[in-house]
Amino acid sequence: VENRIRQVFDAIKDCVGDKGWHEGDAALPYLRDWYDTINGEVGLVVTPTTTEQVAQVMRLCHVAGIIVTPQGGRTGLVQASTPFEGNVNLVLNLARMNQIRNLDLIGDTVTVDAGIILENLREKVAVSGKLFPLSIGAKGSCQIGGNIATNAGGINVLRYGNTRDLVLGLEAVLPDGTIWSDMSGLRKDNTGFDIKQLLIGSEGTLAVITGAVLKLFPHPTASETAFAGVQEPTDALALLTLAKERLGPDLCAFELVSHGALLAAERAIGTAAVALKNAAPWYIICEIAGTKEGEGYQQDMESFIEAAFEKKLVSDGFLAQNQAQQDAIWRTREAISEGLHHACRHDISVKVSHMAQVLKILDAAVTEIDPDAEIAPFGHMGDGNLHYAVAIGGDHSSVGAPDVAAKIKARVYEIVHQNGGSFSAEHGVGRNVQDFTRYKDQVSRGVMSQIKQIFDPRNQMNPGVLFADPRQSGR
Amino acid sequence: VENRIRQVFDAIKDCVGDKGWHEGDAALPYLRDWYDTINGEVGLVVTPTTTEQVAQVMRLCHVAGIIVTPQGGRTGLVQASTPFEGNVNLVLNLARMNQIRNLDLIGDTVTVDAGIILENLREKVAVSGKLFPLSIGAKGSCQIGGNIATNAGGINVLRYGNTRDLVLGLEAVLPDGTIWSDMSGLRKDNTGFDIKQLLIGSEGTLAVITGAVLKLFPHPTASETAFAGVQEPTDALALLTLAKERLGPDLCAFELVSHGALLAAERAIGTAAVALKNAAPWYIICEIAGTKEGEGYQQDMESFIEAAFEKKLVSDGFLAQNQAQQDAIWRTREAISEGLHHACRHDISVKVSHMAQVLKILDAAVTEIDPDAEIAPFGHMGDGNLHYAVAIGGDHSSVGAPDVAAKIKARVYEIVHQNGGSFSAEHGVGRNVQDFTRYKDQVSRGVMSQIKQIFDPRNQMNPGVLFADPRQSGR
Repeated sequence: VENRIRQVFDAIKDCVGDKGWHEGDAALPYLRDWYDTINGEVGLVVTPTTTEQVAQVMRLCHVAGIIVTPQGGRTGLVQASTPFEGNVNLVLNLARMNQIRNLDLIGDTVTVDAGIILENLREKVAVSGKLFPLSIGAKGSCQIGGNIATNAGGINVLRYGNTRDLVLGLEAVLPDGTIWSDMSGLRKDNTGFDIKQLLIGSEGTLAVITGAVLKLFPHPTASETAFAGVQEPTDALALLTLAKERLGPDLCAFELVSHGALLAAERAIGTAAVALKNAAPWYIICEIAGTKEGEGYQQDMESFIEAAFEKKLVSDGFLAQNQAQQDAIWRTREAISEGLHHACRHDISVKVSHMAQVLKILDAAVTEIDPDAEIAPFGHMGDGNLHYAVAIGGDHSSVGAPDVAAKIKARVYEIVHQNGGSFSAEHGVGRNVQDFTRYKDQVSRGVMSQIKQIFDPRNQMNPGVLFADPRQSGR
Repeated sequence: VENRIRQVFDAIKDCVGDKGWHEGDAALPYLRDWYDTINGEVGLVVTPTTTEQVAQVMRLCHVAGIIVTPQGGRTGLVQASTPFEGNVNLVLNLARMNQIRNLDLIGDTVTVDAGIILENLREKVAVSGKLFPLSIGAKGSCQIGGNIATNAGGINVLRYGNTRDLVLGLEAVLPDGTIWSDMSGLRKDNTGFDIKQLLIGSEGTLAVITGAVLKLFPHPTASETAFAGVQEPTDALALLTLAKERLGPDLCAFELVSHGALLAAERAIGTAAVALKNAAPWYIICEIAGTKEGEGYQQDMESFIEAAFEKKLVSDGFLAQNQAQQDAIWRTREAISEGLHHACRHDISVKVSHMAQVLKILDAAVTEIDPDAEIAPFGHMGDGNLHYAVAIGGDHSSVGAPDVAAKIKARVYEIVHQNGGSFSAEHGVGRNVQDFTRYKDQVSRGVMSQIKQIFDPRNQMNPGVLFADPRQSGR
């Protein structure tokens, strides 16, 4: 690190205090992401405790031209929260800004620091009978600021929407250190362009999100979860329609799991936590939850399952009889990701109504490239979003030949694109700038580049994410 | 009109065809807005039938420097859809682009032209058992494109969100004639900044919205509506909390109506369509609607009302016994606006939990300015949004002294602002640029100006709306 930068780092250390920074080996954990590999290099990691500290740090970095990577729980899957090589990088981790600032039980809102861990937030509002509905596999370590910066999805989007739909207010520090605040938490405010919408899903490329006002809902007092085998995605689609009809607005999750994905979960857990007498090529997980009293949900769910059997849409299935069985279903669902650690994954979305037919086209194309591939899709059928996982050569112990993986990815994205879908439904773009350039229309990308210019004219915020970084020509 | 412009207008007429344009007296109706006054001047009104025609018109205007005002049903309340003076203006009305392009009953989406009238849209999807939930008083004449451009609110925001929450995809023509399209209608798509969010609520200042993909919901098969008198806004707030607890996610409307506003509705209708034995200073309208079978909603609503009486939160009230009574309640609610035609109105929002206390402060301040003022607030309590109407001197037959109106407005907005609220909850900014400049923070306004520059560098789109138009220095 050159001397000039060293001096700025010293000033930054002063600003955040002794417990607020790491460098050298102590900084290495902050380069490790979900894939458990160390990415890039970092000059200094800071963990400020206040928005004002973040502003001071950003101001110093701005003046000195230091590149900043805002960081949450590092659970993202597109390498957007770890820096590229180059030791003038600063990682700004929000972990120590983890307080609930205000809980409004009448207005059903909670105001938080960006660094609060999602599960902690959920638990803290649950004590007051409220639900913050965002729920993703990484909830035990991801931070709400990261969820907002990636517009996280998860299992309850069907009922409550994406993270974008849950954000009423936002506070952020702009690259030059200006604090921007839209934290009134109003349900209605039509005064100009809605700037916070730009920051939601911006993957750390525009500003550092430091706080948010979030929507709360009544905490469910009862729930029912069904697990059933289906023969075809088209049957699963018909089941989804039936579920919407029979289960009403409290239908909160409708997941599709291929048999291969179920086996992957069993590998990860070490046992078959959920099993049917008759294995099926596909399974659905369907959950209803809310505040209805008595046996309401059980009756609704039983009538749904009964109709499903009558219409021959399911081959076998059960309704979880207790909390333990519900937990087993969701533990299994959440273990899939770990079980497919080495598979090539594609976070695709298409229109809900197109999903079954697109799956067929994809399977045929992948099998043509690699006849031994094991295809194990799983995901959020209710949102038209599947994690289309492919184990090359049917091998789950290694990542497979990179050229085959690249070929498969290109073909999958192409098919999805041709069918009006997205190559990134909920994970974000991150460093997949090439795919972004190929599949996002030019007009949108042009506008986005100009928006980036407004917020970050010096390209200091997470360069290489969303937009190619001219400084990283080799990558 | 100078000759050069005349030639461009001729080219535009050729492009939209004989039935696609109006000028002179035939153009005058397009200058008339909800207030029934003629605003500004217009050189040419065009009503294109395709997105391609819109693009051609915009291209011609761009080259010739002609100012464009995109226009829907002219039901807005902030003069954002009628042009300023100056006969090089072109009004681009979307009325003839009024088709449903696609109805996806499995994915629960509808793809529409921007010019479709809201009520037509609602009726057309209702035939297929679907609900498009946006509902506002102007629904019989407003266009969905205008609803999107103003992020319309209305009576069902509590259950379904603002227009923003209902838009899955958007198509627009940029000022230079470029067609921008994000019409895939995906439920999840995290590929860069969400540009459509900028156009939603942009009031015609960035682009012409030509199409949209909208969310649909199951059409309610049953509903219950309660009307009750309450003594204090704090009681209404407690009732709202009780309603949320007892009525669950199918609670779709919770409106607050002052006695003065009820009287205004009666004046407009000419009779008391809804009356209680005991008049009260305030009334609430509470509606639950959905697909629950049998007597479900009636029981829920009766238990809610019973609890409300027990807790002494309501003084008198009834549950509509049939469709005619329900209609009478909503007809009354919707007539308030007409009955308060001459009142000074303030479309304010505060946090739901602050509403009662802010109302007290406002009333004291207004009474201090004008002791004879009749204050008649009404609106969407569930969203923290009230239309705070004031009849100056208690006179409903004329608009009152402008200086008193200005004083009241300034004081109302100031109090709302001090209490973290907004001076425009759902109507938009329009020509209230001075208020916008005063109450919106400088950082946000700075970002907005730059966003305007990206889309409309020549300031051709609806100048004078949201941003002061240097060409209109006198206004």
